[in-house]
Amino acid sequence: MPVRLIDSLSSTEPLAELFSDTSILRAMLDFEIALARVESRLGIIPTAAADAIAAAADERAIDPAQLSRDALRAGTAGIPLAKALTEIVRSKDATAANFVHWAATSQDVSDTALVLLLKGARPLMDGDLARAEQALLALSEKHRQTVLLGRTLLQAAPPVTLGLKAAGWFGAVRRGRERLNRTFHEALVIQFGGAVGTLAALGDQGLVVARELAAELDLGCPDAPWHTHRDRLAALVCACGVLTGSLGKIARDISLLAQSEVGEAAEPAGRGRGGSSTMPHKRNPVGCALTLAAANRIPGLVAAYLSSMLQEHERAVGGIQSEWPTVAEIIQLTGVAAASIAEIAEGLTIDAVRMGENLDATQDVIFAEKAVILLAARVGREKADQLLETAARQAAVQNRKLGDVLAETPEVIKHLDSAALRELGVAENYLGSAESLRLRLLQTAVPIDDRD
Amino acid sequence: MPVRLIDSLSSTEPLAELFSDTSILRAMLDFEIALARVESRLGIIPTAAADAIAAAADERAIDPAQLSRDALRAGTAGIPLAKALTEIVRSKDATAANFVHWAATSQDVSDTALVLLLKGARPLMDGDLARAEQALLALSEKHRQTVLLGRTLLQAAPPVTLGLKAAGWFGAVRRGRERLNRTFHEALVIQFGGAVGTLAALGDQGLVVARELAAELDLGCPDAPWHTHRDRLAALVCACGVLTGSLGKIARDISLLAQSEVGEAAEPAGRGRGGSSTMPHKRNPVGCALTLAAANRIPGLVAAYLSSMLQEHERAVGGIQSEWPTVAEIIQLTGVAAASIAEIAEGLTIDAVRMGENLDATQDVIFAEKAVILLAARVGREKADQLLETAARQAAVQNRKLGDVLAETPEVIKHLDSAALRELGVAENYLGSAESLRLRLLQTAVPIDDRD
Amino acid sequence: MPVRLIDSLSSTEPLAELFSDTSILRAMLDFEIALARVESRLGIIPTAAADAIAAAADERAIDPAQLSRDALRAGTAGIPLAKALTEIVRSKDATAANFVHWAATSQDVSDTALVLLLKGARPLMDGDLARAEQALLALSEKHRQTVLLGRTLLQAAPPVTLGLKAAGWFGAVRRGRERLNRTFHEALVIQFGGAVGTLAALGDQGLVVARELAAELDLGCPDAPWHTHRDRLAALVCACGVLTGSLGKIARDISLLAQSEVGEAAEPAGRGRGGSSTMPHKRNPVGCALTLAAANRIPGLVAAYLSSMLQEHERAVGGIQSEWPTVAEIIQLTGVAAASIAEIAEGLTIDAVRMGENLDATQDVIFAEKAVILLAARVGREKADQLLETAARQAAVQNRKLGDVLAETPEVIKHLDSAALRELGVAENYLGSAESLRLRLLQTAVPIDDRD
Amino acid sequence: MPVRLIDSLSSTEPLAELFSDTSILRAMLDFEIALARVESRLGIIPTAAADAIAAAADERAIDPAQLSRDALRAGTAGIPLAKALTEIVRSKDATAANFVHWAATSQDVSDTALVLLLKGARPLMDGDLARAEQALLALSEKHRQTVLLGRTLLQAAPPVTLGLKAAGWFGAVRRGRERLNRTFHEALVIQFGGAVGTLAALGDQGLVVARELAAELDLGCPDAPWHTHRDRLAALVCACGVLTGSLGKIARDISLLAQSEVGEAAEPAGRGRGGSSTMPHKRNPVGCALTLAAANRIPGLVAAYLSSMLQEHERAVGGIQSEWPTVAEIIQLTGVAAASIAEIAEGLTIDAVRMGENLDATQDVIFAEKAVILLAARVGREKADQLLETAARQAAVQNRKLGDVLAETPEVIKHLDSAALRELGVAENYLGSAESLRLRLLQTAVPIDDRD
Repeated sequence: MPVRLIDSLSSTEPLAELFSDTSILRAMLDFEIALARVESRLGIIPTAAADAIAAAADERAIDPAQLSRDALRAGTAGIPLAKALTEIVRSKDATAANFVHWAATSQDVSDTALVLLLKGARPLMDGDLARAEQALLALSEKHRQTVLLGRTLLQAAPPVTLGLKAAGWFGAVRRGRERLNRTFHEALVIQFGGAVGTLAALGDQGLVVARELAAELDLGCPDAPWHTHRDRLAALVCACGVLTGSLGKIARDISLLAQSEVGEAAEPAGRGRGGSSTMPHKRNPVGCALTLAAANRIPGLVAAYLSSMLQEHERAVGGIQSEWPTVAEIIQLTGVAAASIAEIAEGLTIDAVRMGENLDATQDVIFAEKAVILLAARVGREKADQLLETAARQAAVQNRKLGDVLAETPEVIKHLDSAALRELGVAENYLGSAESLRLRLLQTAVPIDDRD
Repeated sequence: MPVRLIDSLSSTEPLAELFSDTSILRAMLDFEIALARVESRLGIIPTAAADAIAAAADERAIDPAQLSRDALRAGTAGIPLAKALTEIVRSKDATAANFVHWAATSQDVSDTALVLLLKGARPLMDGDLARAEQALLALSEKHRQTVLLGRTLLQAAPPVTLGLKAAGWFGAVRRGRERLNRTFHEALVIQFGGAVGTLAALGDQGLVVARELAAELDLGCPDAPWHTHRDRLAALVCACGVLTGSLGKIARDISLLAQSEVGEAAEPAGRGRGGSSTMPHKRNPVGCALTLAAANRIPGLVAAYLSSMLQEHERAVGGIQSEWPTVAEIIQLTGVAAASIAEIAEGLTIDAVRMGENLDATQDVIFAEKAVILLAARVGREKADQLLETAARQAAVQNRKLGDVLAETPEVIKHLDSAALRELGVAENYLGSAESLRLRLLQTAVPIDDRD
Repeated sequence: MPVRLIDSLSSTEPLAELFSDTSILRAMLDFEIALARVESRLGIIPTAAADAIAAAADERAIDPAQLSRDALRAGTAGIPLAKALTEIVRSKDATAANFVHWAATSQDVSDTALVLLLKGARPLMDGDLARAEQALLALSEKHRQTVLLGRTLLQAAPPVTLGLKAAGWFGAVRRGRERLNRTFHEALVIQFGGAVGTLAALGDQGLVVARELAAELDLGCPDAPWHTHRDRLAALVCACGVLTGSLGKIARDISLLAQSEVGEAAEPAGRGRGGSSTMPHKRNPVGCALTLAAANRIPGLVAAYLSSMLQEHERAVGGIQSEWPTVAEIIQLTGVAAASIAEIAEGLTIDAVRMGENLDATQDVIFAEKAVILLAARVGREKADQLLETAARQAAVQNRKLGDVLAETPEVIKHLDSAALRELGVAENYLGSAESLRLRLLQTAVPIDDRD
Repeated sequence: MPVRLIDSLSSTEPLAELFSDTSILRAMLDFEIALARVESRLGIIPTAAADAIAAAADERAIDPAQLSRDALRAGTAGIPLAKALTEIVRSKDATAANFVHWAATSQDVSDTALVLLLKGARPLMDGDLARAEQALLALSEKHRQTVLLGRTLLQAAPPVTLGLKAAGWFGAVRRGRERLNRTFHEALVIQFGGAVGTLAALGDQGLVVARELAAELDLGCPDAPWHTHRDRLAALVCACGVLTGSLGKIARDISLLAQSEVGEAAEPAGRGRGGSSTMPHKRNPVGCALTLAAANRIPGLVAAYLSSMLQEHERAVGGIQSEWPTVAEIIQLTGVAAASIAEIAEGLTIDAVRMGENLDATQDVIFAEKAVILLAARVGREKADQLLETAARQAAVQNRKLGDVLAETPEVIKHLDSAALRELGVAENYLGSAESLRLRLLQTAVPIDDRD
């Protein structure tokens, strides 16, 4: 399924396919077939009717353009779908036509169809997230000893390891993936309530039909219809929002590492990837851009979903009608972000030499905190702070190593010997618990499937 | 252009057409043709090249699916579009191919194409808004004397006229339409800056090319390229947000008037409009639902646009890439809301009898304020409030008219004669400045075109 | 702690107290005391220093107005807090002053302080949610047989029970409360990472300090510092968003039931509650208004939080600085909504007679679906639909019972006897699985504390 | 008025003062005084009553904490304010107490009070915006010839001038300020409609009272009450959103220029400004952080406002109750952003040497576009692209100037002489229309006051 140009940076073909006319028709028809089968099995409608419905429920027999037009007039796709299917069945078996959509309401088919589409989205998204995790884990392992500048408010700060940084990214993806799976689990349940959620048209058989219908569609059966209680879907789109926030943080970091003036990382290259129409030399961080674009859009889309939750009584006027596209976009954008980060993580180019150069370029002023700690015990913190503030400024202005400046400061050399001062600028010696923390982050990496 | 099922409640065919693959291709190619023409006219590229480009720039020659795929890899549709066009031109005239997209950058084409699409949206939206205004004005005129309950916090309150209510709706649409037109005017300008906004590739001819390009495309020429300054588009999407908020308020009001228990208004009927799959008797307020759905979604989409404004330096990583679909949705949703309110306003059924019944059903407790005013001058406000609170409660409990209860209250009849008490419940006598305010609201209705 | 006027509809005194200057100072000082204690216990700083810090860390000794001013200049409250505390300690024990805030960074104190405030919010919110659940459960039990109109798109629809409706509300609150508790559990962990998250200033003792610090503050110890990974807090604010969406749906329903024209429910009365300055007779649904106001604001606030997640490297420029007020508002608004729904649910007045009258007023056209089912088996669905559409319209126009109209329709009485037609309008006989579904919803009501 | 700690990064003292309890009380009392004065002047209430009300309306006589508590129960601050004022007046003049708040409704006072606060905000905000404009204009003038790297997707691109960049910032602030002023102009109108917007309690004097009331308060008099039509305020908060988006873009740019690895700009220094608790050497871009924090939060707040626009009938249940804090925050955040950008622009340190170094470090590959243009005319665009892609890669890998690499490429030197190749890397020669565009942007700088 081609992605429309307007969405070309917001979806991928498999994700777009999920929400294509064909998929939506298929999902709605699957609901109708399953309903008919279950109802015939339970003796509610004739077996022949169910067979006729199943035979007729071919998405190619329905014109999606006309259905779309009818949906706009009806305020739902469910009603015209049921009508269209009824007409097709009627053209072959007039009696069977009586039993299409039996005891269901339009929201039953539109909501359950949406859930079926989400069920299809889950493995797609989870696959990319698993790839991203795996690649970030490998990156963390490989670079457990690669040291680079820490950066706070975009200013040089004491060093970290790329291993720890990548482990932090990994941990965020892992937590996000777990939340996403939990909310998918919660949300993948049928909607089946009839006109007002009592299943009155089925007499006392409502619950058994619901249970069998869920089984037939391989979805969960919730405690009750959730027509105007949208919290399960809301939790799912929020999980997408939180996850994409984390993916966006990773993209922000990588795009900053990939800046020309920083040059510590680069996205994987590839034909047609990241070039510029006017600047043949460029390698643009396209995957980061796509991920950040998704992260820019999703918060507002989550808000749109939450705003639609105030659904009146047994069917809303406005709330339910706004959901389909919001959910579809959130899923596709999350998917694009996950795929982009997976691709970036798998092919990220690291320039460890440049990392070292950027560290060196600070003239070791980033180790002022360390020097303060060493001196504070001797001269007091306040004095130590003053000494370092002066020395750091001098180092920056004179373009000399902090240690060298300190070595000329009488109040310092009274307390610190030249070995200590030489050692001051060794980044590897000022990493604290970086490696332990890295291992803790990766330890959470038990297989995700075992827990769901 | 059919609307996709996923968007079936969020767009109309003409609006969807605006953002179709074909329209987008056409708009991008129009930019390239105009650029070539202007550059050839100014002697920057050969006339033959411009002719060859114009001849080749046929949207049917470009596969949108492939372009979409390439856009995802390039992070923009502009680069692969320029490449695709170059290939087509090259196949016919190798020299001309050198001059495709000359001196432009990808964002020049993608931004200007978006502006061209917006230019197409303007008359569509304005037409429906004009219809809505006209119909609301007529409704207000017709019902200048139709009295109905005022309602505050959904509780019965002193009366208003439907004429005033409709005039309030009219005024909001009118103000919103004016804001929209002002921001359209501001936003319909070309984007043309070359690689970084200096038009360096054109030497000292940048400005003249820009000016001519704008003229060629019948767009405005801004003071400077606005590649990472998105405030004009932001103001436009905000105007859509404010307008749809007002349209949503109208839809909320009408959907409440159309409630079964209120029954004072109904949306126009029509084949396939507002029926229910399970309840053949129903006439659902579908237009209100579509409008409210739009109003639910747009605030988040506006937030998404505003969040994307923090665009880095001369081209953003993430901001620009998130805009196309956000703008397209906001425009389409605003358009659906405008069309829905136009249709509703033109065909709204009013049940003035029911309005009177609902007024009567309050037993005149809604005139307690009036009675307080009459009494306060005699017994003081506090005492008057107490008397009325008691009387109103009694009227409600005993299901009697407030005037009748007051007529039995000694402290009241000392001060108010029976004529005053009889008159108390005449809604027409407690409308204050309703008619003057109505006229003031409609007076703003000078032709909108004259001012733009 | 008084609530500011500007926030008077958005908070309660206990909730406002949580985020007062005093509470924030207290929480930040608690962090500093705990840190000093743990570090002295582990031999990192002198015991005397820890004692001096604990003695000095009195929130009354710090001027919050000055701290606020300094925070604006520093871009964080953490730095001026540490400075202010250092000055106080220094004034008593110059040596101890060296060890204030030892090895911590400003974000360690500001983030952990926020978490401590959230820890205080949890029982407040959970208490109101538990009250709301309990009251909704009791309401559902009491009204298991109270029948009222179902309503779809605000139109009369087949009946439901108030018991089922209240059980649906209960289920949504319960699920929301569980999600909230799960995310609280996840989020109530210390933030402790030092300058860049490596705890380098503590050498190899970082992890043990972290663990002990968490224990001292009675918070969890996360796998690693989460300075620029905000997903745990994001998940918490999202849980608030989803929950308030559900509370808002309840408020929307109740405010609609409380409409003058519907009159089926009313919020509990009380001095100063729900009156009107101009309409002494009114009983406004104030609790619903507060809840809906919260539900209007929270989606945007959630979006604001999610938008702030793209935090650069080891400390953000902009992201972290936007979080405190957003979180504080979301918590307070959720709390107001929870308290309001609890109060409403505990005191809701139900008018079952009015419910019956509203059912009657439909002239039984809401049972058209039932009649269609009965007839479809005999005359086919299409024919049955047509018969009922005609009959329902006639019933509405002539203001007669649907059954009576049908009794005069030859094609109907051929198939349905008069008993069936008389029974048609008995709402109690068309409730389907309402009671079973109600019981299923309430069954999820196992004690929440046992699972957390 | 001190800023609360929770808001310490989101407001300034003058802005916080605007929304303090005292200011709100003052504004509400000002409304009541003005109303009484006008009504006495028109003979509607006794002059003595107006005098007594004016004498009693002292904000110090009302306990804001109690008012806040009462507001929560009443669902509005207007009702308890009127009651409290009535009590004070009654304690001095029982008759006068009858005429407090005469003919007004709670929303009249709460809305008009908000408008009065906004009137106070306008000059504060406009002052900082004017300062920002002035400083950016001066920066642009001073650096009209200072050349620095253009940057697209954070990658080195052809050069721009700082003059043009600052002019772009200036233009965005200017346009944003104009939009803000226009919406302020539109929004600064009284709200006065009585119970339902008809001013019924004033008989036929409603309009004259309204007009005089507006004059008394020095506000505009709108065509009609706008109680549930919130578009004017919505347009104002949107203008804040668009403006803060532009300010955020400036802050994003400057924070990126201020990165350690870029080092081309730095925020003004100052005591307590931008230091770090652990890193004495740092100069954090605090103003940028505050601005970006504001820009992170505002889009969601704008969405919250827009979501609250769907206000029912003559007074909303939920919509109006959510507005005060949303508006207050948007104004304060916009104000903080404006003040921060003004301060930054006035004191920005520019390192033009570093700008040159960063240009040099690209080895002139940023001029590949220029070389392509020179060559394309001779060898065709495709060939030229290939030659430059190869040469640019070689220049990067070998760390040599692009011109030097090209000088060794036979196909190049056939067409370009050595002078052309030497000139290739002269940034000043590849600025296109930068200066003309700069002048155009600044030319819009006619005095803003003349147009409003």
